[in-house]
Amino acid sequence: MQTWERGCAGSALLRFIDILLRGTGQVMFQNHPLTGLLFLAAIAWGALAADAGAVLFGGLLGLVAATLTALWLRVDAAGLSAGLYGYNGLLVGLALPTFLAPSPMLWACVALGAAVSVVALLGTANVTRGWGVSALTFPFVLTTWLLLLAAYAFAGLGGEPPPFAGELEALEPAASNPLDLAAFVGGVLHSISQVFLKGNTVSALLFLAGLALSSRAAALFAVGGALLAVTSAHLLGAESELVSAGLLGFSPVLTAVALGTVFYRPGWRVAAYAALGTVFTVVAQAAMNVAFAPLGLPALTAPFVLCTWLFLLPQQHLQDDGNGRR
Amino acid sequence: MQTWERGCAGSALLRFIDILLRGTGQVMFQNHPLTGLLFLAAIAWGALAADAGAVLFGGLLGLVAATLTALWLRVDAAGLSAGLYGYNGLLVGLALPTFLAPSPMLWACVALGAAVSVVALLGTANVTRGWGVSALTFPFVLTTWLLLLAAYAFAGLGGEPPPFAGELEALEPAASNPLDLAAFVGGVLHSISQVFLKGNTVSALLFLAGLALSSRAAALFAVGGALLAVTSAHLLGAESELVSAGLLGFSPVLTAVALGTVFYRPGWRVAAYAALGTVFTVVAQAAMNVAFAPLGLPALTAPFVLCTWLFLLPQQHLQDDGNGRR
Amino acid sequence: MQTWERGCAGSALLRFIDILLRGTGQVMFQNHPLTGLLFLAAIAWGALAADAGAVLFGGLLGLVAATLTALWLRVDAAGLSAGLYGYNGLLVGLALPTFLAPSPMLWACVALGAAVSVVALLGTANVTRGWGVSALTFPFVLTTWLLLLAAYAFAGLGGEPPPFAGELEALEPAASNPLDLAAFVGGVLHSISQVFLKGNTVSALLFLAGLALSSRAAALFAVGGALLAVTSAHLLGAESELVSAGLLGFSPVLTAVALGTVFYRPGWRVAAYAALGTVFTVVAQAAMNVAFAPLGLPALTAPFVLCTWLFLLPQQHLQDDGNGRR
Repeated sequence: MQTWERGCAGSALLRFIDILLRGTGQVMFQNHPLTGLLFLAAIAWGALAADAGAVLFGGLLGLVAATLTALWLRVDAAGLSAGLYGYNGLLVGLALPTFLAPSPMLWACVALGAAVSVVALLGTANVTRGWGVSALTFPFVLTTWLLLLAAYAFAGLGGEPPPFAGELEALEPAASNPLDLAAFVGGVLHSISQVFLKGNTVSALLFLAGLALSSRAAALFAVGGALLAVTSAHLLGAESELVSAGLLGFSPVLTAVALGTVFYRPGWRVAAYAALGTVFTVVAQAAMNVAFAPLGLPALTAPFVLCTWLFLLPQQHLQDDGNGRR
Repeated sequence: MQTWERGCAGSALLRFIDILLRGTGQVMFQNHPLTGLLFLAAIAWGALAADAGAVLFGGLLGLVAATLTALWLRVDAAGLSAGLYGYNGLLVGLALPTFLAPSPMLWACVALGAAVSVVALLGTANVTRGWGVSALTFPFVLTTWLLLLAAYAFAGLGGEPPPFAGELEALEPAASNPLDLAAFVGGVLHSISQVFLKGNTVSALLFLAGLALSSRAAALFAVGGALLAVTSAHLLGAESELVSAGLLGFSPVLTAVALGTVFYRPGWRVAAYAALGTVFTVVAQAAMNVAFAPLGLPALTAPFVLCTWLFLLPQQHLQDDGNGRR
Repeated sequence: MQTWERGCAGSALLRFIDILLRGTGQVMFQNHPLTGLLFLAAIAWGALAADAGAVLFGGLLGLVAATLTALWLRVDAAGLSAGLYGYNGLLVGLALPTFLAPSPMLWACVALGAAVSVVALLGTANVTRGWGVSALTFPFVLTTWLLLLAAYAFAGLGGEPPPFAGELEALEPAASNPLDLAAFVGGVLHSISQVFLKGNTVSALLFLAGLALSSRAAALFAVGGALLAVTSAHLLGAESELVSAGLLGFSPVLTAVALGTVFYRPGWRVAAYAALGTVFTVVAQAAMNVAFAPLGLPALTAPFVLCTWLFLLPQQHLQDDGNGRR
């Protein structure tokens, strides 16, 4: 690491790569280049295993475009070095080719969305700072939603009309099946890898390794959040396939890591509070899946943003020293 | 009352009951245990008359769960004693069994929603305090919406898919009928009792008695708001059945009481301003009913929250001493 | 002008007319009575050419009702004189008869909506002032949306149920056609006149004349924004008819003028930033058109409000002196 840091000090290119790697780590709140490298490896593995090289390319394009926009906008140096201006662009670039077919126009829109995600981050941060919370992935969610909705109206991005009447099928709830261990473990791991929009076991393990490298508590809360999400979704009777694909778990995983380790000092009261927030994020994910079905729009990490904001706003009430009163 | 207060001072159990009663009164902004008791009687009567004991049980469960959560979160003592942490949980508990079938999973969700309503109240209050307004029933609306939407995706809560294509029928507007006095009076009273999700005349009178006990102005504004809401909904040509069931009037009643008595000192200018807000709440209620029909989602008291926030935010402009300029 | 100002100083009626004219100019951020007069002429021409005198009448009614409400609410004198309390009411009054059939009830709702738009402006301004941005046309959008949605539930305003299943047709994208110069120029001009809800070439020229009279930069940014909007919508493959009718361009025009001239000092970095915001407003307009299609609800200028807020919130980053860091 020291060699790397010395290299960065001496080379603008290495410094730029360092910012990109840290930006990748910031998707799960980690400011560490090696964590970012492992995350990138996980993304690459997940994309290539699914024969979706466009997703990897889009992610890199978004990451670079967002970072260059941040440089052009002369953002604060500390935030830039920590990768805070890159993670939303990376997610925009992973999401758009996941839902839309690759084309030159799509890549233009990835660059546009990534650039706007930086503006949105600056704006959101200005608003939320006053309440002691950060912007999380709200800039990614906002810009990606607008681009995905607009794609229905633009022939250059596909232009198929949305379903409107909705496409919710009759439920085949997991709760009615005997609990299948393989599906359960798969659901837990995919809940972690779906943070980067892919259900892939090897990727999940790489993500966990990257997390553990930078913060063992974060890795623990990620696994705990995934376990809790899969269990509660199962008990509530969610669709088996959604649960085992990790599609009800990625937002809760982020909530668990955010509430448990990043913004609060860990401890038992914090863990219980984070568990409450994690379970409610499962509810919010299911709710938003239903609400956006008529528009054929994915909820993305909006449930994480909503629930984490909700649970962070009353921040002062969870100090473990018993002085939680305002 | 003095005996009661002495009793509360000496007994933790009585104190807890006092908090629960005041929490019930806070649904209509009253910090008074007897008002809460009359409200509870009204809720019980309305639930039992409709053969919906589950609604009464849910309401009590939500009230207790929210109050215990507030204790666990070590909220401020003054707000706790005034019942400010209970009313949202009570409403969550009344609403969920109104729209979903009773089951152990439903009760678990009532407790979850009530607990989250406390978190949401603390968070919302932190945000809105800066603008001089309070959280109102926003925490109830938010948590209940998410749970009702999620119920479509969870077999344990029913799991029926939402209508999506909407279910608005052709209008049979009240305006086309001769004005029927019984329907009119029924609409006015039900507009008051629907604040607690039931259309029941006896309940409405109990609510009014409870209000009058604590604040005669509040009772007057409630009746005035209901009269105005029913009249304007009728004149605008709303569906007869909705009007006489009080379903377009409960949000306006809350707006009238909030704008007229709680946050502003009453007076003629305030009354005219409250009347404007009340009529616009009828519009907002109709609008949200339409907007949420495809999701089969009730608007709950969201129109009240929206319009009361809207009309409270420019607060400084209504002092009756003529010094209303900033 | 000096004669006019002396006349205003001596006559309450002329002063009131001055406020109305400035209120009209404020739709495009201009505080100038002659600009307002030219805008009114453009509105009148557009309405009468389309045989829609009701739109002109509604606009005037909304403008007067909003201004009288502001007087009754004793708003600040400076804002009142500058017409800041009139433009939202004018737009409410132009929009409602554009989408609903004229009737006495409609005029009552124009007056109601215009009055509420003043309350909403005061409230929104109180909230957004803390972040250094203004309310823009958010009060118009909010009140008009609620009234248009409510119209589906009120026989007195029409009472037809909304489409719900949506009405997006297969795209006939402009991009597949050879670029037709007449359609292109028409799209540019209509993008300007649609700010006031009419696609009319003469009106567009009158609007430009009014703008240029008060601020040549504003006129330039309006034309530049319209060019950019039509070009990018075309390249993205938007429906030809929407593009040439200016229906994807009016929000971007407002964004361009707002970002380019009103809130930032112009310059090359500002121009590039405004261009980014303008193109993204095209995306947001298309996105909201899709999202609201099931409710049969027009997006109005919501894309402008959203994108301009988004791009104004990080304000401090665009000073041309290179000291843009926080």
